[in-house]
This record gives sequence, structure tokens and C-alpha cells, in this order.
Amino acid sequence: MKKNTYSDKLINLGTETAFAVSSDATEHAQNGNTVFPFHLGDINICTPQNIIEATKKAMHDERTGYVPANGIPQLRKTIAEVIGSQRNVTYNIENVVVQPGGKPVIPKFINTFMNPGDGVLYPNPGYPIYESQIEYNEGIALPYRYIHSKDGFKIDRPHLEKMIDKKTKILIYNNYQNPIGGESSDEEMEWIANIAQKHNLWVLSDEAYFNIQYSGTPKSIVSIPGMKERTIILYTFSKTYAMTGWRLGAAIGPEKVMKIFSKLGTNDESCTNHFIQYGGIEALTGNQDGANKILNRLKNRRDALATRLNEIKGLQLSIPNSTFYLFPDITEIYESMNAKSYEEFRRNTLLKTGVSFCTREHFGKTIEGEKRKYIRFAFSGISEHNINQGIEKLKDYWLSL
Amino acid sequence: MKKNTYSDKLINLGTETAFAVSSDATEHAQNGNTVFPFHLGDINICTPQNIIEATKKAMHDERTGYVPANGIPQLRKTIAEVIGSQRNVTYNIENVVVQPGGKPVIPKFINTFMNPGDGVLYPNPGYPIYESQIEYNEGIALPYRYIHSKDGFKIDRPHLEKMIDKKTKILIYNNYQNPIGGESSDEEMEWIANIAQKHNLWVLSDEAYFNIQYSGTPKSIVSIPGMKERTIILYTFSKTYAMTGWRLGAAIGPEKVMKIFSKLGTNDESCTNHFIQYGGIEALTGNQDGANKILNRLKNRRDALATRLNEIKGLQLSIPNSTFYLFPDITEIYESMNAKSYEEFRRNTLLKTGVSFCTREHFGKTIEGEKRKYIRFAFSGISEHNINQGIEKLKDYWLSL
Repeated sequence: MKKNTYSDKLINLGTETAFAVSSDATEHAQNGNTVFPFHLGDINICTPQNIIEATKKAMHDERTGYVPANGIPQLRKTIAEVIGSQRNVTYNIENVVVQPGGKPVIPKFINTFMNPGDGVLYPNPGYPIYESQIEYNEGIALPYRYIHSKDGFKIDRPHLEKMIDKKTKILIYNNYQNPIGGESSDEEMEWIANIAQKHNLWVLSDEAYFNIQYSGTPKSIVSIPGMKERTIILYTFSKTYAMTGWRLGAAIGPEKVMKIFSKLGTNDESCTNHFIQYGGIEALTGNQDGANKILNRLKNRRDALATRLNEIKGLQLSIPNSTFYLFPDITEIYESMNAKSYEEFRRNTLLKTGVSFCTREHFGKTIEGEKRKYIRFAFSGISEHNINQGIEKLKDYWLSL
Repeated sequence: MKKNTYSDKLINLGTETAFAVSSDATEHAQNGNTVFPFHLGDINICTPQNIIEATKKAMHDERTGYVPANGIPQLRKTIAEVIGSQRNVTYNIENVVVQPGGKPVIPKFINTFMNPGDGVLYPNPGYPIYESQIEYNEGIALPYRYIHSKDGFKIDRPHLEKMIDKKTKILIYNNYQNPIGGESSDEEMEWIANIAQKHNLWVLSDEAYFNIQYSGTPKSIVSIPGMKERTIILYTFSKTYAMTGWRLGAAIGPEKVMKIFSKLGTNDESCTNHFIQYGGIEALTGNQDGANKILNRLKNRRDALATRLNEIKGLQLSIPNSTFYLFPDITEIYESMNAKSYEEFRRNTLLKTGVSFCTREHFGKTIEGEKRKYIRFAFSGISEHNINQGIEKLKDYWLSL
């Protein structure tokens, strides 16, 4: 074989580095220990039964052949109506392209708008695939950061604005944010919208957690005048309906852009699984008891986890209204441990307590000058009972440092 | 918005142009006419019931969460064993990455091995997504052609070999070929393998129709010594088990390459639907009556279609042992019609007879110097009864020219 046998571009391909966390947790369990899995972004709750039944019926009705790359018309229409109405905007069927999950919207968005050398603003800490896709496709990664105060996380506006130049073309916005749980005030969202319009940016609005709200009403940036025309929504069934393993989502945006997404879909995957699209229709239009139960269980877990974490000295926590993550500042504990790295801090804690979590480093490269230390607790894959047990052990260990 | 608002690369993105054929057929039907759908690459036969039941059981067993990007271990192991054994080679679990369909193997393969400017040999006429993905990713498209004789279609070897230079890196090989139904003799396959080794090429072996054999035993290029190490198999459940709309397939190849495919999967789609992977296990290890019935129905259709087509004067047909396509030379009829283009020929025939088909032009750009005219009849989406009726009308019209 030739020496340089693979594509050069692969050097820049990142990944979800949290896999190392999973594999450490598995090893710890295999050694006979109890693991408290706060690292999982998955949901350990089953999909509501009415969605499963609708999917079974579609299989029985022989919905097993190809469908158009953009999805079955009934699901596209349903998504346009329901997602539009929740956001106070009007979408129609031509604004929707069904996707095999929410994630495929990210590479399609990057590939539709970005040329090599174009600048892309994206949240950091944030979902790691943004950074990976930007760098893999040879864009200029422009990570914007957050300021943490008692009121939660706010976008650092001067820092964001200073990065914009004439090559900046895209802004990735993830309100109800993974991992920090951050939520924009109306005023912050208006500011972001204004920046996008002033600098003529295309916006990817990652709305994976839009329906995971423990209080209040969610708001989308597309509801701000002038934004619908320049925004692609990443929609997914994964969180609201506990359908992570189904791989069902959608891109929602201007008709012209959706035609490109559809053509990319024809090239990359042909179409999304046929029969599960009927499950998607049932999810959006059927009985919402299942979704409500999921949300209630998550709320109880959040409350339990926040209560217990707040008992730990040296830990600073904001409690978000959305997502299923808590992102405490653990700088003082980190320093008490004399940890030389996030990885050492994480692994020591796992070995001593069985508590497994991701750290700030799993969500994009650390920004220069960053001093405070953060870790992420996910409460979507762990019971209330185990939350209490795990944090008790964590508290004992950390206080002993 | 900026004038040049989209990515420059999109200019080179092709598609499956056969959609225009579908849309003409739909319009013709909506005008009250009977359409005989020979253009469909889909199968109008339901997936075998045992596969559906295994999938329903997996849903019932709450297999609804995320799985690893490379698939569930049980399915990977099963694919390694069954697909390896059918090809007389040994694969293990590390050689398999489950995919959401066969198609996603094509972009992953191109993105793993090809740099802009690298040459890629691929069959033409052939599956149109090869050409689209090569050109979209800025490779040099090197279409190799076929010579048609009474014995079927043979690769034009001097033409293929003349295109190879030091920038040539990849060979795409689709034995049991769509659209021509071509099949390599052992000697032709050895020649291809020898070319790949001599010029140090990576090979994509598209084996979508490997199990659609009406007589004889299929053979894979990976069974030739030295080839397993440089070949990625595109495997799909779509054709053998009538699972086109399920989107379930796999890439099978060297472990190092599969690690890259898995990382690309993490970036592009997270994973393949969880519960359908149990359907895949049942497909490969369960009762094969369903697959046999599908094959028998297709064989009856092939025989009926070939018999009727052979009654048409001026049409030259080879009858392949594989695929569900017939690819007759219709040059004389084309000339009788005085058609100025394939599109005129196709549309005239549709309007006069209701018979809908794809032409050679839907399978890659015409090669310079190409003189004979071909069309493709798919018999996967049409009943025997309608095959007979449709070809009767076709015969009457074409003979009247």
C-alpha cells in the first residue's frame, strides 16, 4: 500500500471523546464495582407505547419499501404544522426534510453553506460534533464562550463579536444547551438574531432540547422577524419521546435550502427508514401522556440531583430549566485533589466512588484563558435511587480530599 | 444574503436523475392512464414475516436506545460469519460496521481513501451515485465501459487500463451489475483483481445483488488471494430480503479501515436504528423461505419479461443470471422513431403505451464514441400480469414505427 493511504482530510476528523468515559465505566463495573452512570447522554426510559404500536402497524401495512429522500408527505406536513405552531411561525411541507436522526442535519448544514476557509461561530463548551464537522470540512472554527454567574450561563458577547470578520458565514446556536443547560433570555436571543442579520450569517438552530422544559415556555430564534429566512432548525424525536435509538429527526428551513438537503440525502442515505416515520406522526399528533411522563421523571431526577449536589461544599451549581444535564463548577474540589488534568480528576473519582461523568474537555477544545473547571452530570440514564446513592459517595470522597 | 451563498462544491453534486421518470409516470397515471412501472428500482414484495416479527420483539424488549456507531455486536458477528462463509473468506466482528443502508458505504469509502485529484475507476453505465460522489468530492472520474456481445457484457479491458495513471487510487467494482445485469467470468474477476494489486488500488465491491442469483453460485472478488486486504464490501439487506425501506446494510473490510468508517458514522449519523438490527440477525440466521420466495417471484418475472422482449424485432437482449434488470440494446427502434434524444424516446413511449423505464442516460454520463442505445427494464416493482400487458403494448407501438 502507498504510505499515505488514507484521505488527508481525516486528520481533522474529531469524534465524541466521551466513549473513553463509557469504556472506563464498563471496565470498572466488570471489576465488580457499582457504577453510577452520569456520563450517558442516552435515556433509560422506553419510547411511549402508542408510538411503538403505530410503527408496528406501519410494518404490518407493508410500509417497508423506499420513500422519497425528503420523507413521507404525511410526516413532513405534520412536522411543519406542529413544530411551526410551537414556535409561532408558519412552515409548510416544502420546509421539511425528514432525517435519520437529528445529527445528520449538522454535516448537511455545513456542506450546504461552508467553503473551506469560511468562519463558523459555535458554542464551546458545546456538542462536540460541531467542532469536528467544521474542522473536518476545513472551515475556521470560531468557538464562542459563556460567562457563569449566579443567574446561569450567558454568552460572552464582546468575545463572540470580536471573532467575526468578513469570512464568517455561519452561526451555530444551541439554546437549551448541551452540556451547560444554558438558556438565552429574550434579550440575549434578540442580540444573537441581530448579530446574524447584521453580519449576514446562516444560522443552525439546534433545538434538540426544545421540548425538555421543566418550567416556562420555550422560544425559538426563528420566531424573531428576519430569522426564519436564514435559519435551519435541527429537530429530533430523540429526547422528547425517548427515541434516541430510532434515528428520526428533521431539518426545517427555507424551501431552497431544503431542496439541497434532499439532494444530499439522495447521495448519502437514500431515505430515512419508512415505517418509523409513522411512529413519528403518532409521536407528534397522538396522546402526549408518554412524553409528559418522561418529562416528569426527568424533572424528579433533576431536582434530586441538584439537591444533593448543592450539599457539596466547593461546588457551584446553576439549575437549568431545560436539558437533562447539570454543569457545576468544581474548581475548588479539583484543586483540593491536586489533579493535573481533567482526565485524572475524572478517573480518580470513578475509581474511588463509581461515579462516572464527562468533563468540560469532552465538549470542544478548552478556550485560551479558561480558568474555572466544570464537569457534566447527565441524569437521563440513571434512576433517582442511584442518583442519591452515587452523590452520597461522591460527597464523602470529595470532602475527604 | 451574499451572492454566492452556498458551498461551491454543490455545483458538482449529482443525483439519481431517474426521479424525473417517476414523476412523468405519476403524471401519466393521474391523467387516467395505466402505467407499467419498469422504472422502479424498488421491490413491490413485503419483507418476510419472520424478520418483521423479530423487529417487533426487539421494540417490545425496549431496544430503543442508542447503540455503538458500528452496530450491535450480535449483528456484526452474524454478518461476519454469514457473509464471510458465503464468500469463502474469514471475517470477524472487527471487520464489520453496520450502516443505515448500503448506500452510506459509498460516501464513507470515498471520504476514507480519496483526496481531491485522485482518480477513481467506476462502471459506466453504473449506479449513478458513484459518479456523483466522486465528482462532488473533487476526484477524477474514470468511467470504464462494457462490450456487449451475444454472451453478455464484458469489461472493456484495454479502455480501463489506458485510464490508469499514478494518481489512480480506487476501483469501484459492481459484479452483478446495476443496470446492465453484467456478471464477471472467473477470468475477468481475476483480471480485475490483478489490476487492483498491480496498481495498488483500493476496491469498493458493491455486492448489493450478490444473493439475487437465478442459477449458479455467486463469487466475490474478496475470495481472490490478496484482495480481502484492499477491498471494502458494500453489503445490504435491501434486495435479498425486500428490505429497501428499512435502511440496513454494512461495510465489511480491513479492521483499520472499519475504525475510520465507525468514526465517520459517529460524526454523520450516531448509529443505525437499534431494533431493526435484530431484524437483520433474523434475516441472516432465520428461516430463508421468505428470501427464496422473493427470488422465485423475481425469476418468474425475469423469464416472462425476457420472453416477451425477445418477441420484439430490432431489440437485442442478453439475459443475466442476476439482478432484477434487463438492459436491451434498442438502437434500431430508436432510429425508427427518429428520436433526437433518449428523453424523447422514453417520453414518447410512455405517452403511447404507459410503459415507463429508465434509459442508459440515468446511469452516468455517456462515454465518448458510444453508438448503441440501451434502456433498462426493472422487474422488481411490477407483477407478471402487468409485465405481459405492458410489453404487448410496447411491441405494438414500436413495431408500428
